[in-house]
Amino acid sequence: MTAKSQTLKFENKPRIIAGMSVVGRKEGDGPLGKYFDEIDDDPKMGKGSFEKGESAMFATAVAGAAKKAGLRPFDFDALFAGDLLNQLISSNYAARELPVSYFGLYSACSTMTEALSLGAAMINAGYYRTAACVTGSHFAAAERQYRYPLEYGCQRPPYAQWTVTGAGCSVLSIKGDGPYISSATIGRVADYGVTDANNMGAAMAPAAFETLLAVLDDTGLSIEDFDAVFTGDLGRLGARILRDLSAERGVCLGQKYSDCGEMIFSREQNCYSGGSGAGCSACVLNSFILDKMRKREYNKVLLMATGALMSPTTSFQGESIPAISHGIILEND
Amino acid sequence: MTAKSQTLKFENKPRIIAGMSVVGRKEGDGPLGKYFDEIDDDPKMGKGSFEKGESAMFATAVAGAAKKAGLRPFDFDALFAGDLLNQLISSNYAARELPVSYFGLYSACSTMTEALSLGAAMINAGYYRTAACVTGSHFAAAERQYRYPLEYGCQRPPYAQWTVTGAGCSVLSIKGDGPYISSATIGRVADYGVTDANNMGAAMAPAAFETLLAVLDDTGLSIEDFDAVFTGDLGRLGARILRDLSAERGVCLGQKYSDCGEMIFSREQNCYSGGSGAGCSACVLNSFILDKMRKREYNKVLLMATGALMSPTTSFQGESIPAISHGIILEND
Repeated sequence: MTAKSQTLKFENKPRIIAGMSVVGRKEGDGPLGKYFDEIDDDPKMGKGSFEKGESAMFATAVAGAAKKAGLRPFDFDALFAGDLLNQLISSNYAARELPVSYFGLYSACSTMTEALSLGAAMINAGYYRTAACVTGSHFAAAERQYRYPLEYGCQRPPYAQWTVTGAGCSVLSIKGDGPYISSATIGRVADYGVTDANNMGAAMAPAAFETLLAVLDDTGLSIEDFDAVFTGDLGRLGARILRDLSAERGVCLGQKYSDCGEMIFSREQNCYSGGSGAGCSACVLNSFILDKMRKREYNKVLLMATGALMSPTTSFQGESIPAISHGIILEND
Repeated sequence: MTAKSQTLKFENKPRIIAGMSVVGRKEGDGPLGKYFDEIDDDPKMGKGSFEKGESAMFATAVAGAAKKAGLRPFDFDALFAGDLLNQLISSNYAARELPVSYFGLYSACSTMTEALSLGAAMINAGYYRTAACVTGSHFAAAERQYRYPLEYGCQRPPYAQWTVTGAGCSVLSIKGDGPYISSATIGRVADYGVTDANNMGAAMAPAAFETLLAVLDDTGLSIEDFDAVFTGDLGRLGARILRDLSAERGVCLGQKYSDCGEMIFSREQNCYSGGSGAGCSACVLNSFILDKMRKREYNKVLLMATGALMSPTTSFQGESIPAISHGIILEND
């Protein structure tokens, strides 16, 4: 690794041996509905609040992923987890039931690839044999924390995105079957001066762009080497900005590129620019992408989840929105 | 490592080659005042808000630690960082100025040892050569986010703690001089049912207790093997609970044990149970503890930072307070 490389290479092939996705009704009704493992009609998951529902979804994703991997949740050597709620409460309260070494992470909507990067690095180095990497988000809990409670009935601008209600968990293991993570490219914080907190796609696109260039530079690969390239939740507008920024640098994303936020809702679902939230890329990875890899329709995939790192406080204080994107490369043997 | 060990061992001796502590006036006036590198009289650090001041302290700690290590901030291979503010804004906004791979972490007041554990693991495995591990907190920013704005003049119960205004940064490196991290014991989430959000010490003591037992079990060491044992910010009450819990299991902490929260303020400073906040253990480690290790007054130290993982939302919703503690062992050659 050269000094300025952002990419970690994993020669021991840490694998995703199982993935579980749990989503809400709206996500289940979307274009990827058939790929999700569990669709819940109750946004509170039978609990007393949206936040407790989010935590329950999180726990369901971990338990389901463990079961698919032939493990019990307490068999994991470690849990790499985070979410969008203040103080990571949906992760923390779910982790309380799991007697497992716990790493709390916050990378906004790029938490899934931060967790997978660290989990894969720790397994590749021999510290752990199995780990669960998990994140999620919840529309109603996120709206009232980041914007306004739903009851206010606020109007949304046309470039706004819709926070995905869903949790996704990947089981990483040094043994077993499944695509392996060949490398992880750890993002740097990028801030191009966007100040509109409704326009997350525009704020995050530069971070995805910089991480894409780092992936290509560090690995020597080109877009043609991948069967598919995904970003996390840039949405329609952000994805277009990423295409434009890349094209200016001679990188043509073309048909191989999709954004999980664009994929998860149809235009008819009135989600404007598309889906967002930490659960967005987590659910699409642990359903659609893993499915296509298992069927060998894809054999080499780049996934760059994207996160906007602002808070309501910084927006009120007139700050622009920093963003980050961590990229992982998934490969079949 | 056995399946259920929580401890990672670092045979390649990742070292803390420099540490920097930046604190506020109250901390500077406390018993450890002479150990801190920089004491700032202005709680906003010349910025427009407490939050921006916290972020500026964070940046000062990183820059100062880099300078002491003979590096520039952009020489780091990676930054492991987090803080107490929602969405980690003091870390994120400081990281925006650093073109360095960035891992956002949240482990409440145990963030310093989470960052050092991951940083040491990544350096020990050869992924990175140098990393900055940093966290901080700010009394006024924390009060208005977690409790009430200072202007309300709320009364505090006698077991309340005082959030430390300060940031601490450790530079980890595979080369150079300084104490090395021989192992890290990654905590599990513990919740013994404490619901009083003012009583953090009681909520966190069980987590420190469980991690202490894990350290002793996993390493085969006993308290006698250490020159000093520190917890992060249990405060007077929490430290006493930890002593009692340990004594019941036959582990006598005795004179070797201190709590950074108890150390940082004197009783005359009216901080009741003592200091708290992610900056508490970060500042005490990167001043007093490193100083004593460099002078070889200590040659083997156990530091267990402690974090309460609740949020105001969970408290309002009647939840108890989960907590976590990550422990690292520091040794001189």
